[in-house]
Amino acid sequence: MIISHDLGGKFVCQTAGPSVHFQKYCSRERDIMSQNQPQTRQEHDSIGSVDVPAEALFGGQTQRAVALYPLQGAATFADYPILLTAMLQIKRAAALTNILTGAIARDRGQAIVDAVDGLSDRSWGAAFPVHAFHGGGGISFNMNVNEVLANLANRDGFGAPLGSYAPVHPNDHVNLNHSTSDCLSSACHIAALAAFQPFSLEIEGLAQDLERLGAEWAPLRKLSRTCLQDAVDIGFQDYLGGVAVNLRLNLAQSGTAAEALRQINLGGNIIGRSIDCDADFFEQVIGVLNGELAAAGLPAGLRRTDNLFAASQAHDRLLNLAATLEQMARTLIRLAKDLRLMASGPHGGLGELVLPAVQPGSSAIPGKINPTIPEFMVQCGMMACGRAAAIRMTQDHGEMDYNPWEAVVIVNLLDMIAILESGVSTLRRNCVQGLRADVARNTDNATSLLPSLIRLKQLKGYSYSSQIAGQAAGDLAFVHREVAQAEADLSPQTEHTS
Amino acid sequence: MIISHDLGGKFVCQTAGPSVHFQKYCSRERDIMSQNQPQTRQEHDSIGSVDVPAEALFGGQTQRAVALYPLQGAATFADYPILLTAMLQIKRAAALTNILTGAIARDRGQAIVDAVDGLSDRSWGAAFPVHAFHGGGGISFNMNVNEVLANLANRDGFGAPLGSYAPVHPNDHVNLNHSTSDCLSSACHIAALAAFQPFSLEIEGLAQDLERLGAEWAPLRKLSRTCLQDAVDIGFQDYLGGVAVNLRLNLAQSGTAAEALRQINLGGNIIGRSIDCDADFFEQVIGVLNGELAAAGLPAGLRRTDNLFAASQAHDRLLNLAATLEQMARTLIRLAKDLRLMASGPHGGLGELVLPAVQPGSSAIPGKINPTIPEFMVQCGMMACGRAAAIRMTQDHGEMDYNPWEAVVIVNLLDMIAILESGVSTLRRNCVQGLRADVARNTDNATSLLPSLIRLKQLKGYSYSSQIAGQAAGDLAFVHREVAQAEADLSPQTEHTS
Amino acid sequence: MIISHDLGGKFVCQTAGPSVHFQKYCSRERDIMSQNQPQTRQEHDSIGSVDVPAEALFGGQTQRAVALYPLQGAATFADYPILLTAMLQIKRAAALTNILTGAIARDRGQAIVDAVDGLSDRSWGAAFPVHAFHGGGGISFNMNVNEVLANLANRDGFGAPLGSYAPVHPNDHVNLNHSTSDCLSSACHIAALAAFQPFSLEIEGLAQDLERLGAEWAPLRKLSRTCLQDAVDIGFQDYLGGVAVNLRLNLAQSGTAAEALRQINLGGNIIGRSIDCDADFFEQVIGVLNGELAAAGLPAGLRRTDNLFAASQAHDRLLNLAATLEQMARTLIRLAKDLRLMASGPHGGLGELVLPAVQPGSSAIPGKINPTIPEFMVQCGMMACGRAAAIRMTQDHGEMDYNPWEAVVIVNLLDMIAILESGVSTLRRNCVQGLRADVARNTDNATSLLPSLIRLKQLKGYSYSSQIAGQAAGDLAFVHREVAQAEADLSPQTEHTS
Amino acid sequence: MIISHDLGGKFVCQTAGPSVHFQKYCSRERDIMSQNQPQTRQEHDSIGSVDVPAEALFGGQTQRAVALYPLQGAATFADYPILLTAMLQIKRAAALTNILTGAIARDRGQAIVDAVDGLSDRSWGAAFPVHAFHGGGGISFNMNVNEVLANLANRDGFGAPLGSYAPVHPNDHVNLNHSTSDCLSSACHIAALAAFQPFSLEIEGLAQDLERLGAEWAPLRKLSRTCLQDAVDIGFQDYLGGVAVNLRLNLAQSGTAAEALRQINLGGNIIGRSIDCDADFFEQVIGVLNGELAAAGLPAGLRRTDNLFAASQAHDRLLNLAATLEQMARTLIRLAKDLRLMASGPHGGLGELVLPAVQPGSSAIPGKINPTIPEFMVQCGMMACGRAAAIRMTQDHGEMDYNPWEAVVIVNLLDMIAILESGVSTLRRNCVQGLRADVARNTDNATSLLPSLIRLKQLKGYSYSSQIAGQAAGDLAFVHREVAQAEADLSPQTEHTS
Repeated sequence: MIISHDLGGKFVCQTAGPSVHFQKYCSRERDIMSQNQPQTRQEHDSIGSVDVPAEALFGGQTQRAVALYPLQGAATFADYPILLTAMLQIKRAAALTNILTGAIARDRGQAIVDAVDGLSDRSWGAAFPVHAFHGGGGISFNMNVNEVLANLANRDGFGAPLGSYAPVHPNDHVNLNHSTSDCLSSACHIAALAAFQPFSLEIEGLAQDLERLGAEWAPLRKLSRTCLQDAVDIGFQDYLGGVAVNLRLNLAQSGTAAEALRQINLGGNIIGRSIDCDADFFEQVIGVLNGELAAAGLPAGLRRTDNLFAASQAHDRLLNLAATLEQMARTLIRLAKDLRLMASGPHGGLGELVLPAVQPGSSAIPGKINPTIPEFMVQCGMMACGRAAAIRMTQDHGEMDYNPWEAVVIVNLLDMIAILESGVSTLRRNCVQGLRADVARNTDNATSLLPSLIRLKQLKGYSYSSQIAGQAAGDLAFVHREVAQAEADLSPQTEHTS
Repeated sequence: MIISHDLGGKFVCQTAGPSVHFQKYCSRERDIMSQNQPQTRQEHDSIGSVDVPAEALFGGQTQRAVALYPLQGAATFADYPILLTAMLQIKRAAALTNILTGAIARDRGQAIVDAVDGLSDRSWGAAFPVHAFHGGGGISFNMNVNEVLANLANRDGFGAPLGSYAPVHPNDHVNLNHSTSDCLSSACHIAALAAFQPFSLEIEGLAQDLERLGAEWAPLRKLSRTCLQDAVDIGFQDYLGGVAVNLRLNLAQSGTAAEALRQINLGGNIIGRSIDCDADFFEQVIGVLNGELAAAGLPAGLRRTDNLFAASQAHDRLLNLAATLEQMARTLIRLAKDLRLMASGPHGGLGELVLPAVQPGSSAIPGKINPTIPEFMVQCGMMACGRAAAIRMTQDHGEMDYNPWEAVVIVNLLDMIAILESGVSTLRRNCVQGLRADVARNTDNATSLLPSLIRLKQLKGYSYSSQIAGQAAGDLAFVHREVAQAEADLSPQTEHTS
Repeated sequence: MIISHDLGGKFVCQTAGPSVHFQKYCSRERDIMSQNQPQTRQEHDSIGSVDVPAEALFGGQTQRAVALYPLQGAATFADYPILLTAMLQIKRAAALTNILTGAIARDRGQAIVDAVDGLSDRSWGAAFPVHAFHGGGGISFNMNVNEVLANLANRDGFGAPLGSYAPVHPNDHVNLNHSTSDCLSSACHIAALAAFQPFSLEIEGLAQDLERLGAEWAPLRKLSRTCLQDAVDIGFQDYLGGVAVNLRLNLAQSGTAAEALRQINLGGNIIGRSIDCDADFFEQVIGVLNGELAAAGLPAGLRRTDNLFAASQAHDRLLNLAATLEQMARTLIRLAKDLRLMASGPHGGLGELVLPAVQPGSSAIPGKINPTIPEFMVQCGMMACGRAAAIRMTQDHGEMDYNPWEAVVIVNLLDMIAILESGVSTLRRNCVQGLRADVARNTDNATSLLPSLIRLKQLKGYSYSSQIAGQAAGDLAFVHREVAQAEADLSPQTEHTS
Repeated sequence: MIISHDLGGKFVCQTAGPSVHFQKYCSRERDIMSQNQPQTRQEHDSIGSVDVPAEALFGGQTQRAVALYPLQGAATFADYPILLTAMLQIKRAAALTNILTGAIARDRGQAIVDAVDGLSDRSWGAAFPVHAFHGGGGISFNMNVNEVLANLANRDGFGAPLGSYAPVHPNDHVNLNHSTSDCLSSACHIAALAAFQPFSLEIEGLAQDLERLGAEWAPLRKLSRTCLQDAVDIGFQDYLGGVAVNLRLNLAQSGTAAEALRQINLGGNIIGRSIDCDADFFEQVIGVLNGELAAAGLPAGLRRTDNLFAASQAHDRLLNLAATLEQMARTLIRLAKDLRLMASGPHGGLGELVLPAVQPGSSAIPGKINPTIPEFMVQCGMMACGRAAAIRMTQDHGEMDYNPWEAVVIVNLLDMIAILESGVSTLRRNCVQGLRADVARNTDNATSLLPSLIRLKQLKGYSYSSQIAGQAAGDLAFVHREVAQAEADLSPQTEHTS
C-alpha cells in the first residue's frame, strides 16, 4: 500500500500495512499512490535524494512524508479543504507582502500569487497527499504547500521544469518571512472560524425550529417531570422554548470562543520572536491577509495576538472552542434522547410525541418504527465528544516554548464541527421539522393526579391539598372536582352573581 | 457505622459498611453518628415515623437521608461551607421577602432570619450531617436546612420544643415560595462565584510571580526548543512572560464563565413555572438577596436568568466554568512539568533552573533533591481533570424538564477550585518565588550551534548559513567566528573608520 | 490554616488558604494542626533544622511535608487505612527479614516489629498527618512511616527520647533494604486487592438479589424494547437475569485485573535494580510478608513480578483494574437508570416497577416520591468515572525509568472502590431488595400490539402477520383473536377432538 | 451533495451540506452519489415508495438511509471491510444452515451463498453506500447487505430483475432466522478479533525490536532517573527490556479481552429470545459459521454466549478490549515521548539517543532534525484515546433490553486498532529499528555524581557515603577515587598478594 522509494537514508518505510489476506481495514486509497509510476524525477534535500513521480506538483519533502507515514485510515489535508484554503491564502498574502516590502522580486512573488489563484481548478487530492498526522510540527504539510506553489510558479510563470525550484524556491521564496509554526497556527484559527460559521447557523436554525413548533402548539399543555416522576403541567412551548434557550446559550459560549480566534500569530516565526522576519513584513502582512480574506468571503478582521511566545506555547483559544462544542454535543445528545423518550411506545412508552416515520424500523418486526434520526444525532454527539477528548490531551503534553500537537487539535476540531453539523442538519430536516404531538395523551397527562394536586395546592394551600391527596386515594375524578370547586370559589363574585 | 432506626418503612438501610476486620477504608466519621444516643424524639412524615436524636437541630427527613446513604468516604454539605452559606443566605432572603410581601407573619419570618444569623456560632458539622450525594434532586440537603432553621426559629423565637415544627414549619414557612430546585441551583451559582474569586487571585499572583522573575532576569538568554530539539535563543523573560499571558488568557475564559453565574433561577420553583410562587415574591426576592449578599461581602449583582425552564433543564453555566478550569488545570500541569524538565539533572538533565530544595528527595539516595512541589501541582491538576470528567457526564444524562445531577456538578466544581488553589498556592510560595537560573548553562545553550546558525542566517541568508553549517561539521568556534564577522560587517562604516 | 515553622530553608510555605472571610471551603482540619503547640523539639536533616511538636510520633521530614502541602480539602494517608496497614505490614516483614538475614541486630529489629504491632491502638490521625498528595514519589509518606516506627521503637524498646533516632534510625534500620518506590508500590497492590474483595461481594450480592427477584417473579411477562420502541414480550426474569450476567462479566474482568496485583516489586529498590538490597533479603522478604499477611487475614500469595524495571516504569496492573471498574461503574449507572425509567410515573411514565418509598420526594409537591436511591447510585457511578479519568492521565505522564504518579493512581482507585461499594450497598438494601412489579401493567404491555404481531409472525409468517397488521389498524382485539386462532390451529388434533 | 428523492414520506432530507462557497470540509464523496442518474427503478416498503438507481445492487431501504444521513465526513461500512466481510460470512452461514435444516429451498439458499462468493469481485463502494452511522440499531447496514444479496441472488441465480426480490426476498430469505441485532453484534466480535490479530503482531514486533537493541547494546550503562532527577546507573538493556515487558503486559490484557470475543450471540434475535429463530437453526448455525471462517482464514472457534439477553443489553466484551487498547495507546505515547526526550538536543538536551534522520526538521532552521516519527506515534495515541472516550460513553447510555450504540463502539474500536497499528508500524520501521545510542554521553552520565555516590553507599554504607558527598562538594574525581578505593578494598586478598 505504501510506495517505498529509496529515500537516500537508511531507514525508509517498509511497511505494507496489515497482512490480512482479504482486505485492508480502511480503503481510502489515494489515486496518486496506487498508480504505476515508472517515471520519476530525483530531488535532493539535506537528508539525501528522493525519487518523486515525474509529474507530481509536490516535491521531495512531500514524497518523504507520504512514504514515512502510513496511509491506513488517515485523512490527508486535502480532506480538510477549509484548512488548505486558509494555508493557501496565507501563502498568497505573504507573497503579496513580500512584493510590497521589496523582499522578493515582483515577478517571483506574482508567480506565487498566480499559483495560488490557479490551483483551485486542479485536483487537490493529487497535489496534497500528505496525511494530516506526520509528526508534531506540521512541517510536511507546510512544505507540501511550499513545494506545490514553487513548482507551479516555476512551471507556469517561468517555464521551468517541475523540481527545478528556481527561480522560485519553496523555502527561500514561498516560505519567506514566515515558518510552519506561525503559518499553520494562523491557518488553524481561520479554518476553525470559517467552519464554525455555517455550523452556528444550523444550531440557530434548530433553536428556531423548536420555537416555531412551540408557537404552533401554543395552547397544548404537557406533563413535566423531575427525576422522571410526574410533576406539574407546563406548556409544550415551555419545554421547547427552554431547549432553544439552552442551545443559544451554548452557541453564545462557542461564539465567544470562535471570535477569539481572530487573534493570530502570523509573524511570530518558529517560536514567537518577531525578529525572525523582516520588520516591514511583520507590520503589514496581517492587513494584506485581511483584505484578501474579505474579498474571498472568508473570516477577516484578524489581528495579531498580544504575545507571540504565548501563542507558540499553547493553543488555548482553539481548545476553548473545542470545550464549548463538547458541551453543545452533550446538549444535543440530551435533546435527541428527550425526543426519543417522549416518542417511546407505541403502547408501553410515554407516547407524547410522534416522530416522522422515515424508514422501516426492524429487519424482523413488522410495523416497527425506530427513532433513528435522533439516534443518529446521539451517535454524532458521542463521536464529537471523543474528538474533544483527544484535543484535551494535547494541552498538558506541550513542552516549554512550543506545543507541537496543533494538528491533533485542528483535525479533531474540524471533525467535531462537521460531525455535529451533519447530526443537527439531519435532526432538523428529517425529524424536528416534522414532529407531531399526541394531543390526547399530553392533555390526559397534564391533568393527571400530581399536576392536579399541585393546582389544588396553589388554590387552597399545601395542608389542604395534602389532606385531599389522602382522601382521594388515587381517585382522580375526586381531585378534579376539588380543583374545579376551588377554581369556582376563586372566580370574581360578579361573575357568579351575573 | 450507620444508624439504622426503623424508619417506618420496610426497606431501611442495614448496611454496616465493608466488613474488613482491621480498618475501614476511609475514616471520616461524623461525631453525630458514633455517639451513643439513648435519647430520641419521634417525628412523622408522609412515609411514616422517624426517631431523631433528641437534641438534634435537624429533623426526620434529615435523619432518613443520613440512614439511607452510607457515610463511607462521603463529604457532607458541611464540608462545603461556601455552598451551605449560600443556601442559608437564600433562606434568609426568602424570609425577609415573605415578610415584606406579607406572605408570612413578621414574627415567624423574623425568627427564621434570626435562626440564620445565630447559626454561624454553632457547630455546622452536627447540624448538617446530610451527605453531599443523596439522590438527584438535593431535596435532603434543602430539607436539612429547612428543618434546622425551623427548629431554631421555634426554639429560640417561640420557646417551642425541637421537632414541634410550629409555629414555624420547614415546608410551609422556611421553604415558602421557593423549592429545592431553584434554591439549590441559585446557591450553586453563588458558591461557585464566591469560590472562584480567591482562586483567581492566586492565578493572577502566579502570573505576576513569573513576570517578576522575568524582569529580574531580564538580560538572561536561554535556548528555546521545538519538539524538544534546539532552536533559537530567546530571553528567559520571553518564556516566563508567555506562560503568564497564557495563564491570564485561561483566567479570562474562566472569569467570563464565572460572571455568567450571576444569572440565577430563584423564583423558578420546581421546573421553571413562575406561577409556583407569589408574584410579589418573584418580583422582589433577588433584590433582597443582592442587598444581603453585598452586606456579607459575598458576590452580589445577581439577576434572574431569562428563561427559567432552560435553567431547570441544564446547568450550562456551571459546566462552562468547569470546562475552562480543566483547561487551566492542564496549563498548570504543563507549567509544572516545564519547571521540572528545565530543572532536571544535576548532571544528566537540562539544568537550566534550580528549584528551591524543600525536603530530602529520597529515602535511599543520599543528597538527592526532587521537584516535589511542581509534582504536587501536577497531582492537583490531574485530580481536577478527574473532577471535570465527572461533571461532563451530567450534561447528557439530564432528561426533559430537569437535570437532577447538580450536586455532582457543584461538589466536583468546588473540589476543582479548592484543589487547584492548593496546588497554585504551594507552587508559588514553595517553588516559583524561589526559582534560580543557572546563568552559565543558559548562556552556553543560547550560543550553541543551532541558535548560532540561525543568527548567521539572519545576517547572511539561508543558503550561506546552510553552507557554513556543512563546513563547520559541528565546530562551534568556527560558526561563532562567522557570526562575529557577519555582525562586524553589518556595523556602520563610520565605526570601522574611526 | 497551615503551621509555618521556619524550616531552615528559605522558601517555606506561607499560605494561609483563601482569605474568604466567613469560612473555608472544606473543613477537614486535622487536630494536630490546629492545636497550640508551644512545645517543640528540633530535628535536623540534609536541608536544615525543623521544629517538630515535642510529643509528635512523626519527625522532621513529616513536619516539612505537612507545612509544604496545604491541607485544604486534602485527604491524608490516615484516610486510607488499608493502604497504611499494607505499608506497616511491609515494614514489619522487612524488619523480620532483616533479623533473619542478620542485617539488623535482633533487638533493633524486634523493636520495629513491636512498634508496628503496638501502633494499632494509637491514634493514626495524629501520627500520620502527611497528605495523600505531596509530590510524585510518595517519599514523605514513606518517611512518615519510617519516622513513627523509629520513634516508637526507640521510645518503647529502648527508652530513648522521641527524635533521637537511635538506636533505631528511620532510614538505616526501618527502611533497610527497601525504598519508597518498591515499598509503596507493593503496598498499593496489597491495598487495592484487599479493598476489592468486599466490593466484589457486594456486586455478587447485587447479582444474586436480581436473580432472586427474577425467580420470585418467574411467571411474569414484560414488554421488551429496542431503541425505546415496543418489541417482543420476555420474562421479567429474562431482563433481571441478563443484568446479573453482565454484572458478573464485569466482575470477572475486574477480578482478573485484581488477581494480577499479586505480583509485586518489593526488592526492586528505587528503579528496579535487585542489587540495591541484600541478596538474602531479596530472596526471603516476600515469603515472610506472605506469612504475615495470611495471619492478618489480608491478601497473601504474593510473588515478585518478572521484571522489576517494568514495574518501576508503569503501573499497568493498577490501571487495568481501574479501567474495568469504570466499566462496572457505567454498567451500574445504566442499571440504576433502568430502574428509574421502569418506575417512572405514576401516571405519565412506564410504571412497570414500584420502588420502595424511602423518603418524601419533594419539598414543594405533596405526595411525590423520587427514585433517590437509584439516583444515588448514578451519582456514585459518575464520581467513580471521574476518578478513573484522573488515573488514566498518569499513564502517559510517566517518564523513562519511573512513573511518579502512583499516589494519584492508588488514592483515586481506593476512592472508586469505596464510592461504588457505597452505591451498590445502598442500591441493594434500600431499593433492589424491596422492588415490586406492577403485574397488571406488565401483563398489559406484554400482550399489546407489537408483541402480539410478533407472536403471530412466529405462528403464521412475516407476510401474513404484516397483512393482519394492516387490516387491524390498531385494533388490538382483532390481532389477539388472530393469535388465539393461530395457536388453536397449532394445537394437536387429539386435543381438538377430545 | 445529497440526493433527495421523494421518499414517499413528508420529511425527506433536504440538506445540501454547509453552504461554504469554496469547498466542503471533507471531500470523501461516493461515486454513486455524484453521478447523474436519470434511470431509476421504484421500490416499495412499509413507508412508501423509493426511487433507486436502476442499476444499483442495493434497494429502497439502503436508498432511504443514504438520503437520510448526510455524507459529510462520514465513513461507510465499505470503509470497514473487515466488518463487512464478517457480515457477509454470517449471511452465508445462515443461508447454508437454512438449507441444512430445510428452512429454505436449496436453490434459493444456494443463490444467496453464490451471491456472497461472487461479491468480492465487485465494487463494494458502490454496493454498500450506507454510512457507518445511521441511527442506533444498524438496521440500514443489515438491510443494505440483505438487499444486495437478494438482488444478486435473483439476478444471477434466477435471471430476475434487480428490485424484484423474488424468488429471494431480503427479509424472508436472506435475513431468515436472524435479525440485525444478533447478526451485527456477532459480526462486530469477529471483526474486532480479526483486526486485533495483525495489530498484536506489531506490538510483539516492537517488543522484540527493543529487546534486540538491548541485546546489541548489552554492555552499555546509562543513567536512570526518578522524577527527572539523576539516580542510579542501569544497563540500557534494563530500560529497553522493561518497556518490552510492559508492552507485552498490555498486549496480554488486550489479548485476554480479544479472546473473550469468541463468545457471540448469533441466534439471539432481536432481544435475546432463542425462540425467535428455528430450534434447528439455533443449534447449528455457529458450527457452520466456524467451518466457514476457518476455511477463509478468519477467527473461528466461536461459541454462543451463555446469556443472550445479557448480550443484547450491553457490549461489555468489546468495551473491555477498547479499555485495554487505550492503556496500550498511553503506554505507546509514553514510550514515544521517552525516545524524544532521550534524543533531545543536540546541545541543550539529554542527547543519549540518536534517532534516524528521516526528513528535514524545519522550514526555517537549517540543519534541524525533528523527532517526527515518535511524534506521529504520539498523535496516533491521542487519536486512539479520543476514540476510546467515545466508546466509553455508549455503556451508560444503553437502556433496558438493548444497547443501540454498537456502531459507535465498533467503528471507533476498528479505528483505534488501525490508528495504533499505523503508529507502531512506522515507529518500528522508521525509528526504533534505526536507533543509535551516544556511548560517550551515556557512559559519562552513568558515572556521574549520583550514581557514584550510590555505588559508594553500596560498598561503604549510607552514613559514610553521605559524609563523602559533603566533603566532595561536587568534585566528581574525588568521589570516583573513593569508589575505586572501596572496590579495591573489597577485592579478595589473594588477588592483592599475587
